[in-house]
Amino acid sequence: MDVTAYLKQRAEAVEAKLGVLLEALPEAPPRLLEAMRYSLLGGGKRLRPALVLGACEMVGGDRETAMPAACTLEMIHTYSLIHDDLPAMDDDDLRRGRPTCHVAYGEATAILAGDALLTLAFLTAANTGDLRVVREVADAAGVEGMVGGQQLDLEAEGKAVPLEGLRRIHRAKTGALIRVSVRCGAMLGDADEQQLDALTRYGEHLGMAFQIADDILDVVGDEQALGKPIGSDAQHGKSTYPALLGLERARELAEEAAAEAVAALEAFGPEAEAFRALARFVVSRDR
Amino acid sequence: MDVTAYLKQRAEAVEAKLGVLLEALPEAPPRLLEAMRYSLLGGGKRLRPALVLGACEMVGGDRETAMPAACTLEMIHTYSLIHDDLPAMDDDDLRRGRPTCHVAYGEATAILAGDALLTLAFLTAANTGDLRVVREVADAAGVEGMVGGQQLDLEAEGKAVPLEGLRRIHRAKTGALIRVSVRCGAMLGDADEQQLDALTRYGEHLGMAFQIADDILDVVGDEQALGKPIGSDAQHGKSTYPALLGLERARELAEEAAAEAVAALEAFGPEAEAFRALARFVVSRDR
Repeated sequence: MDVTAYLKQRAEAVEAKLGVLLEALPEAPPRLLEAMRYSLLGGGKRLRPALVLGACEMVGGDRETAMPAACTLEMIHTYSLIHDDLPAMDDDDLRRGRPTCHVAYGEATAILAGDALLTLAFLTAANTGDLRVVREVADAAGVEGMVGGQQLDLEAEGKAVPLEGLRRIHRAKTGALIRVSVRCGAMLGDADEQQLDALTRYGEHLGMAFQIADDILDVVGDEQALGKPIGSDAQHGKSTYPALLGLERARELAEEAAAEAVAALEAFGPEAEAFRALARFVVSRDR
Repeated sequence: MDVTAYLKQRAEAVEAKLGVLLEALPEAPPRLLEAMRYSLLGGGKRLRPALVLGACEMVGGDRETAMPAACTLEMIHTYSLIHDDLPAMDDDDLRRGRPTCHVAYGEATAILAGDALLTLAFLTAANTGDLRVVREVADAAGVEGMVGGQQLDLEAEGKAVPLEGLRRIHRAKTGALIRVSVRCGAMLGDADEQQLDALTRYGEHLGMAFQIADDILDVVGDEQALGKPIGSDAQHGKSTYPALLGLERARELAEEAAAEAVAALEAFGPEAEAFRALARFVVSRDR
């Protein structure tokens, strides 16, 4: 199973669709649209949309049914990066090897580009024709999910956070969106109750594995591969798994989470091979 | 027809419901929730939710059916004010007689409170059970509507904008949300095609009347009544109707737009009396 090729194929399909969606906005102010395009089509692993499409395919659905939801998740992820990078937040200048949105377009336009992407995400979600998708995404991305996690993360800066606190931050900040990606794909593929439960557990463990691996990469990663400076967590006084537990133990935890993600798929057959490989991939990737 | 009492009654019902919706978020970080509550329940005319409820009632619908959509519109309006007031945008310190959200809670929390309210707005919209509401609101609030208008407004600062350009900015920045408020209420009240068309035209003219009146109040208003300093448009180098046409002509235009709003309701009987009075009210209000 070539995970890189699997992700690349889905990333290309999603990017093509995202491009089409941005083309369909003739009334948008050109500079704002350009800022949205700059951030949305500026690379990235496209993990969340790949999970949407992959979960849909895995339960026997047509990948195209899940394409709007896949785009929704990538738009939400992108808006959150634009706002997180702002001077008042993490104040980061570099993302995916390029200047961040506010460096390239100014702070006001970056704030509005984020707002516009979040709003477009829900327009796109509504176009799935499935209210459950709108509801689940709004729940996962909101004050009890991603945005709440970002707030907790900011409040925790410079403080000693216990492991349970760190888990809560990450479950909200990155976990909720990864979990809902898998769930939306499964729902749009008409998963039955058992499949949806199994895939939800997969998403939860995968999110945890992904986040710990992210923390580790910020310590030992290659700046060239990552496209951003390493050590930024420490610089911002952020609590991370390696800082709290040491690199060795953090690596073990990441491996355990990946193994639990794989275990959640035990009722599936070969159709789950890609997701099994993906779980192993997220803890061994270099970016 | 006592418009003030009409608005007050609907404002109280909406505020009660908004309070309930904010109570139902046990996992939200307390400080972020407090910032959301500070801005969402910090006063205001509640014009948009009143339009949602009023349009629904007018076509014979049950007001409660439209309550979630009314809350959606007020959340979106509030998030847009929080983000507009940010230092990188209009940099305003005072709103409704109180410190703006970023002055009270800091910039990072204010950005996130806006993001959280926008996201909660769509969760609430999904709870109408009507995908059309999600779609229409996302369209009106997005890059071709409100957010796009905000971008155009920022780009126009310090520049001479012709009347048609100013119309376009306002149609997007404030008009789209007022128009969609009326449309959502009408749709949820099961308006027929003709009623929806008439109310849409009403919303368009009302939005125009409202915006011109707003521009005029920023020149001749009473700071105490407005709860914010007057002259801020001129200070920000913003194009306005009075600046472009003079106070006299701007007042005439506002009256004309209000009259056109009233004219759009000609097929309705006494059930439209409140909306007729409201159109006259928006051009004679002092805040």
